Amino acid sequence: MEPGPCSRPAEPGHCVSGPAGAGSAFPESPLSVAGAEPGNRPGTVAAVLPAGGCGERMGVRTPKQFCRVLERPLISYTLQAMERVCWIKDIVVTVTGENMEAMRSIIQRYGHKRISLAEAGATRHRSIFNGLKALAEDQPDCKLTKPEVVIIHDAVRPFVEEDILLRVVLAAKEHGAAGAIRPLVSTVISPSADGHLDHSLDRAKHRASEMPQAFLFDVIYEAYQQCSDFDLEFGTECLQLALKYCHRKAKLVEGPPALWKVTYKQDLCAAEAMIKEKISQEICVVMNTKDEESVGHLLEEALRKELNCMKITSTVMDHIGGDIRNFIEQCYSFICVNVVSPDSQETRKLLRILEESSLPLLYPVVVVLVHCFDFTSVPLAQKMESLVWIRGLAKEVKERNILLSGLLLNYSQDEQKLQESLGQSAAIIAALVKERNSALVGQLLVA
Amino acid sequence: MEPGPCSRPAEPGHCVSGPAGAGSAFPESPLSVAGAEPGNRPGTVAAVLPAGGCGERMGVRTPKQFCRVLERPLISYTLQAMERVCWIKDIVVTVTGENMEAMRSIIQRYGHKRISLAEAGATRHRSIFNGLKALAEDQPDCKLTKPEVVIIHDAVRPFVEEDILLRVVLAAKEHGAAGAIRPLVSTVISPSADGHLDHSLDRAKHRASEMPQAFLFDVIYEAYQQCSDFDLEFGTECLQLALKYCHRKAKLVEGPPALWKVTYKQDLCAAEAMIKEKISQEICVVMNTKDEESVGHLLEEALRKELNCMKITSTVMDHIGGDIRNFIEQCYSFICVNVVSPDSQETRKLLRILEESSLPLLYPVVVVLVHCFDFTSVPLAQKMESLVWIRGLAKEVKERNILLSGLLLNYSQDEQKLQESLGQSAAIIAALVKERNSALVGQLLVA
Repeated sequence: MEPGPCSRPAEPGHCVSGPAGAGSAFPESPLSVAGAEPGNRPGTVAAVLPAGGCGERMGVRTPKQFCRVLERPLISYTLQAMERVCWIKDIVVTVTGENMEAMRSIIQRYGHKRISLAEAGATRHRSIFNGLKALAEDQPDCKLTKPEVVIIHDAVRPFVEEDILLRVVLAAKEHGAAGAIRPLVSTVISPSADGHLDHSLDRAKHRASEMPQAFLFDVIYEAYQQCSDFDLEFGTECLQLALKYCHRKAKLVEGPPALWKVTYKQDLCAAEAMIKEKISQEICVVMNTKDEESVGHLLEEALRKELNCMKITSTVMDHIGGDIRNFIEQCYSFICVNVVSPDSQETRKLLRILEESSLPLLYPVVVVLVHCFDFTSVPLAQKMESLVWIRGLAKEVKERNILLSGLLLNYSQDEQKLQESLGQSAAIIAALVKERNSALVGQLLVA
Repeated sequence: MEPGPCSRPAEPGHCVSGPAGAGSAFPESPLSVAGAEPGNRPGTVAAVLPAGGCGERMGVRTPKQFCRVLERPLISYTLQAMERVCWIKDIVVTVTGENMEAMRSIIQRYGHKRISLAEAGATRHRSIFNGLKALAEDQPDCKLTKPEVVIIHDAVRPFVEEDILLRVVLAAKEHGAAGAIRPLVSTVISPSADGHLDHSLDRAKHRASEMPQAFLFDVIYEAYQQCSDFDLEFGTECLQLALKYCHRKAKLVEGPPALWKVTYKQDLCAAEAMIKEKISQEICVVMNTKDEESVGHLLEEALRKELNCMKITSTVMDHIGGDIRNFIEQCYSFICVNVVSPDSQETRKLLRILEESSLPLLYPVVVVLVHCFDFTSVPLAQKMESLVWIRGLAKEVKERNILLSGLLLNYSQDEQKLQESLGQSAAIIAALVKERNSALVGQLLVA
């Protein structure tokens, strides 16, 4: 139980809505979201995430919120997305008794903050109600502060962004209730009792109700207190409770496609691919010279050609100081060109800096050591033998979620051979960065 | 335009519903699907696949049906799934004029059969109508035979299985119309004109209407002929047309989760992951000895441990004859253990057999050459130098969609070191098989 100021956003060095450590759910700094005027502030906000589902639709035994994506449970990504938003003061997660310990260890291992746990109920509505009770001041065991607005979100929608959270919160402040919607992908039909088509619904007149939703706390809490056992047992829609019991017609807010819910096995595959893509958006090329003509710059150019939608930055080894965040923010891939002295001291320095940062805590960090030399002047086999230390070092840092491998680039005098090797190097680096497959660490690849 | 008998199923050697070449859409052999009694035969069946969409929801310029998955356009997977079903006589694909040529070259390149093309209309309903006209005998330019039953399916649902196709066809024969349905993932709501919640629909009483659907041809063709311009312009549901204009209440058939429609970018990622998983279900270990104690069998054992849900078969190199289908059917991954003589003749033989088969036409085939020796007796660098020919050969066969790489296994006298190397070999092979990344071909990996 750690309600408290947003002192450490989960995304290292990246607090979306303003400087961290403000200690207030109502930051003094203007929100970074377009249209968020001072009058449009979210107020005190908490969130409830029901995570008591058993995932029977996934066809696997592990509940889907605990399925692993890049070795980390899916729910940790959702928590990370929520806690990045500084103005969300408390996040209450409801989990079943049998998963309580597992949830506690996830929170500890990945350093999640501002999370409180409550016991899940037998249905989604009962779980949400339990989460709300944990925030309500009229409950004897309440340890949290009652918020003005409460967000309800799913543990299995990890790609939620601050923008849509803010929009539903502001709409809820104004209208009492608000929820994200999306166009329908399939036409919805109503079957008759004997399994035939009774009628189909006009797709243009209906929407899929998605998450997040937000409510004035008093509205949704009253709705849950008044609603029937039948509602709690069979209902699926919080907006409907606010309408039925508090006469609040929820404002509907168009959300982005990324709000989709991880429901089936194919969704888990998609989530992994999307997360891999997200963390591979930026590559940092680390060189040992500023020389504009250097092979490092040629490789940088080749990478730009191969990966035309990624951000490629470059820096010089000497500039890497104690705080790696001075020059990178969201970078999980480092390509070190010829920076390595024979005793590998410089590589070890970079790896130590990465280890000491919080980067590998959340995602595997890829480091490729590129050695450039003319294959005709030094036999490849001899060079490989001299680089065998990479295997040992890779094994060591793999424990700390750093995926290290070596790449030999043919720095040939023959322009065509050089270009070929540069192109192949870029393709190999792209594969290592995009796949992040830990089985390939320690390998010496040849381009 | 190639209407004709199902002489060549796209999945090599794998015609789901019976022997190929029967030349009849009404096979004499009993259908292999449970419950398909002789009386439950599908009758003459054709299919219409509207593929005229522009994919604006995908957020990319290429229409989603033409987006590439493992280098092959998505629609080719859907065509493959349809033509695997021998009792579907003709498949009419509707494409826009500007994509007609591209579609023709896809059909040619991937050897699709029984496909006819028709011009897409401006809306989905108009496209389907055009497809039906191509099958109707009353049209002056009709080149196909009017079927008893017509299936309508989406070009962007590549995972359709024969079972659900048969179930909707048989239901259509009985009821005039039938369609696959799935439970709703999100609650469906009806918004008011000012963007507020008007009411939410009971999730238990509604279903998502998916594809495939099937109709007695005369029913759906009449419905399209009678329906209004408004229907053709704004309608989305064929079942509704059959109800409105022919008073046929479609039978609804529960379909599997795999029916999902590739709509957004995340779906394309999921499709790629699912296809990779599907073609990685089986690994064939090719050995040069029958000796049960051989390192090949030890590696087979390690692979079984690493990949416990995959099928691992093994064979001896000498048994690989001209027709690789004698011992494999759905296998796209070959691990050759120590089969290679120094002049690489045996490897070249295997590669030639693979090239001559139709395996690499549809999917990239992974071949890993495993060389086992004691790292303390032969220097690694020396061994690598002697295997440098793998790089050249890999480059050659990559052109033909075969992904070749080498793996050096430490066949150590030290039991612990041997086990470690076997485990790492299995992990590397798993990575190569699962990812099928062409950037890594020709590499010599060390375990």
